[in-house]
Amino acid sequence: MDKTSPETGPSTTKWWGWGLESKTYPLDDKPQFWPYLLRTLKLAKLNECPRLTFEEVRLPAGRLDDRTLAKLKRIVGADISTEKHDRLTHSLGRSYPDLVNLRRGLIRNPPDAVTYPKDEKEVAKLLSFASANKIAIVPFAGGSSVVGGVEPTKHRGLNGAITVDLRKMNMVLDVDAVSLTASVEAGISGPKLEDELNKRGFMLGHFPQSFQFSVLGGWIATRSAGQVSTKYGKIEDMIESLTLISPVGRLDTKAVPASASGPELKQVLIGSEGTLGIITKAKLRIHRVPEVRRYEGLMFKSFRDGINAIRETMQSGLIPAMMRLSDPDETTISLMLSSQGVATKLGLWLLERLGYAPSQECVMILGVEGDHTTVKTERQVAVAACKRNGAFAIGKGVGSTWLNERFELPYLRDVLLDHCILVDTLETATTWDKLETLHGAIKKSIEEAIAEMGVTGLAFAHVSHAYSDGASIYYTLVAPQVKGKEVEQWLRIKKAATDCIMRNGGTLSHHHGIGRDHAPWIKQELGENGLALLRAIKKQLDPKGIMNPGKLVVPH
Amino acid sequence: MDKTSPETGPSTTKWWGWGLESKTYPLDDKPQFWPYLLRTLKLAKLNECPRLTFEEVRLPAGRLDDRTLAKLKRIVGADISTEKHDRLTHSLGRSYPDLVNLRRGLIRNPPDAVTYPKDEKEVAKLLSFASANKIAIVPFAGGSSVVGGVEPTKHRGLNGAITVDLRKMNMVLDVDAVSLTASVEAGISGPKLEDELNKRGFMLGHFPQSFQFSVLGGWIATRSAGQVSTKYGKIEDMIESLTLISPVGRLDTKAVPASASGPELKQVLIGSEGTLGIITKAKLRIHRVPEVRRYEGLMFKSFRDGINAIRETMQSGLIPAMMRLSDPDETTISLMLSSQGVATKLGLWLLERLGYAPSQECVMILGVEGDHTTVKTERQVAVAACKRNGAFAIGKGVGSTWLNERFELPYLRDVLLDHCILVDTLETATTWDKLETLHGAIKKSIEEAIAEMGVTGLAFAHVSHAYSDGASIYYTLVAPQVKGKEVEQWLRIKKAATDCIMRNGGTLSHHHGIGRDHAPWIKQELGENGLALLRAIKKQLDPKGIMNPGKLVVPH
Repeated sequence: MDKTSPETGPSTTKWWGWGLESKTYPLDDKPQFWPYLLRTLKLAKLNECPRLTFEEVRLPAGRLDDRTLAKLKRIVGADISTEKHDRLTHSLGRSYPDLVNLRRGLIRNPPDAVTYPKDEKEVAKLLSFASANKIAIVPFAGGSSVVGGVEPTKHRGLNGAITVDLRKMNMVLDVDAVSLTASVEAGISGPKLEDELNKRGFMLGHFPQSFQFSVLGGWIATRSAGQVSTKYGKIEDMIESLTLISPVGRLDTKAVPASASGPELKQVLIGSEGTLGIITKAKLRIHRVPEVRRYEGLMFKSFRDGINAIRETMQSGLIPAMMRLSDPDETTISLMLSSQGVATKLGLWLLERLGYAPSQECVMILGVEGDHTTVKTERQVAVAACKRNGAFAIGKGVGSTWLNERFELPYLRDVLLDHCILVDTLETATTWDKLETLHGAIKKSIEEAIAEMGVTGLAFAHVSHAYSDGASIYYTLVAPQVKGKEVEQWLRIKKAATDCIMRNGGTLSHHHGIGRDHAPWIKQELGENGLALLRAIKKQLDPKGIMNPGKLVVPH
Repeated sequence: MDKTSPETGPSTTKWWGWGLESKTYPLDDKPQFWPYLLRTLKLAKLNECPRLTFEEVRLPAGRLDDRTLAKLKRIVGADISTEKHDRLTHSLGRSYPDLVNLRRGLIRNPPDAVTYPKDEKEVAKLLSFASANKIAIVPFAGGSSVVGGVEPTKHRGLNGAITVDLRKMNMVLDVDAVSLTASVEAGISGPKLEDELNKRGFMLGHFPQSFQFSVLGGWIATRSAGQVSTKYGKIEDMIESLTLISPVGRLDTKAVPASASGPELKQVLIGSEGTLGIITKAKLRIHRVPEVRRYEGLMFKSFRDGINAIRETMQSGLIPAMMRLSDPDETTISLMLSSQGVATKLGLWLLERLGYAPSQECVMILGVEGDHTTVKTERQVAVAACKRNGAFAIGKGVGSTWLNERFELPYLRDVLLDHCILVDTLETATTWDKLETLHGAIKKSIEEAIAEMGVTGLAFAHVSHAYSDGASIYYTLVAPQVKGKEVEQWLRIKKAATDCIMRNGGTLSHHHGIGRDHAPWIKQELGENGLALLRAIKKQLDPKGIMNPGKLVVPH
């Protein structure tokens, strides 16, 4: 990604949407998708909602004076920019309201400058300077936050905001093939990290949907989960140690497999969302590239059957890489998004039901990874649990299609926005005893909130990221936009869904984080004394309150 | 355990040593042990070091006046005591210096009163009262700390110390057979917890060596590890949520399998060693009682071979319950402590070497637990790794002997102390790349420190608690006591070993905790900013500094 040029090109990322300028989500080979969506959303036709061009977008003037900028240049040399393209591409993340505002050029809080430090010394100096001058610092990794984690929102007492983009700190520093660990700078992107490790026969195994455009430091700061976290863990399980540079100095946690040296401070820094300092590097637990990767499809007669199969497998102690169970509506929409080959396969099961009320069938993608013995045994245990719960095997085609297309869906959001369709995702996790009730309650809360503004929407979900005691549940929601009230509409849905999650024993977030959008619920999530403790931690590491203000811990 | 009576009886625990009054470590059937030990420690004969009787011990007078005691009685009713037996049995833990001081009646810091609250309300009131009156509160679970975690040490500004013994809060509140969790009060003992769960077909799977006399709240407060933590995790992995009552109020963490709602505050409360508040209950991840438990012995030609076998197994992804590898000296001493049957088995391999320089052979106990499929596969993978590294199978007898005797060794400490022999254990963990070097360095540091005071000692170790990236290493050391300087002698050894651990990349503790004895190194372990963060956390939850003062976080 070119840091100053606004031109488009095959490797240039969109300032207004997901991923590469040159890429979109192909729908020509999925003829059933649009008719299905129009029917479901009760729309007569597709509308068009064009976006502004780069030239049409106007940014508010920067607040840093020349003297301040000159001082910053003494710290990072040429690696600071006040150009429109840098400021615009660091002004917002990739949440629905962020995309709506980018497309219409409503950029309230661009950073006043963007810096690209080259090492920890520069980071430390930037933080000291910003502390002394009361300037907000917004750490920036991939910028793919879907909870408003990177917007430089304004706060009283702060005289501007500098975004610190870590992309120049992107090296694999060391790989320990004996302990299976890698020391890596926090600015490395998902693909570069995997490439560098793959070359040496290893992998991290962290594949969030944002993988291609997200970055290690962001994963750590937000407690990210990859698609195969069931086997390899969430990012917090992958970190042996890390370094955080805070306004009061650096913290290096000890690189040991486990410890009883008091509270685990590493777990305070993981998930800190840039509010305590900047994570500059981590020592990661890596794996050998698996000999075998086998992904396949299974069909269940009901969501409950599928949930039981996952639960029984997780509680057996032999854990597959992934068990991703779609609810009936997601199963239907997956079929609509399948290109021909897979549609045929899936169709044997489902086609006759098209156009009818949603059926109860649920598709699961089961993935196993490892050496031959591991894969054989883990698959045997998982498939047995599925069959006990009435599953019907639908083959490896569905699995390989999922693997091939697993990072593509975010591109579809831009296509839907082009056609005035609201699309958002949200997620939580809870214990097995509450999962099915929570699933139904969230769906209802979202669809009712959508209906309250006079349109018809749909919410569908999958269970993934499973544990012995519960699982996460991940919702996608679509609805026709309410023209002129796009963000208000979204806020009402978001509030309804989040209130519902909190009422039904879900966590405020399982892997998206808190950012700006979930912060109003953080007190309810942590309790009054929990929030007070989090504030005390922030006060200790960031006494001037310059680090990513307004995120995670809302001001009193 | 009777809370006020000093009489002895079959179910009464020792005030001066380990476990039941009625029990000792039998050596009559191990005729090789004493000759081996005398030879190794270069002693001509066994000496006798008798201990004081209960009647001979004198305690300093309590510091709480009648008015204060009357107020305390209004909180806990009759469940408060200033009797000698209660104060004495809560004055020290079970570390070597604690045992030395108990045996000679040197009780510097008994609590002024011991309370036995019945519920969280009483705990909260006790903490409020103590905060308002600047009285230290020492939480007490099983009292088996080996790092000085429960001694009510004096601190300026505090007008006395009350020990809060949790034994009356010992109920299993709820078992969720769907999510496989159990809500349990923190004062429950290991055996009661397992019994209650076993009755319902479940278990926790946490078996520290102290199991029979340690208590859930203590396990959580010290980040304890059980003997099968390799499969089931350390206590911190077993806790879905917990409740802490601090002087400023209660914290309930959310009962969900995983979360991205900011820093994981649960991990701040786990390992807090009573310095932030009192852990009153937890929701634990439980397991079905395994269908099969298979433990067996393997013999390796060298420690390195055994380490490689554990590492390769852990990195395969299929994890057995336990791989416990003794170094050559521990292998020899295990043989000396074997009763006849096992000695014969092991003897085939080792007997010819007796009396010679320590050989290089190392015994491993390999344990697998679970259903038939799991056990078969996990054993197959582990045994294959062992055989690749030159192991020779020595059968299930060694395994079942280990299982039967696994909680007995602490009784031997008292026998050795009766004969003026210093015996202590210490432990750490590090990454695989450093493990062998660390092992050798610690052994050398301990044996040299022992020699510096003119006696000959021995340090031997085992590797246990394994991870993909490293393992813990657990040392036992024995030496003739230096008469009149027993604690000074121990301090010199402790300092040498701990300095060595810190120099060689080990953690200050893997599962014993920090307490009083490791606190001098906590700054080196956490770094200056890490320690400052820990102090800020304490300041927030315990602003008056009444909670277990002098432990974990040493005063400025």
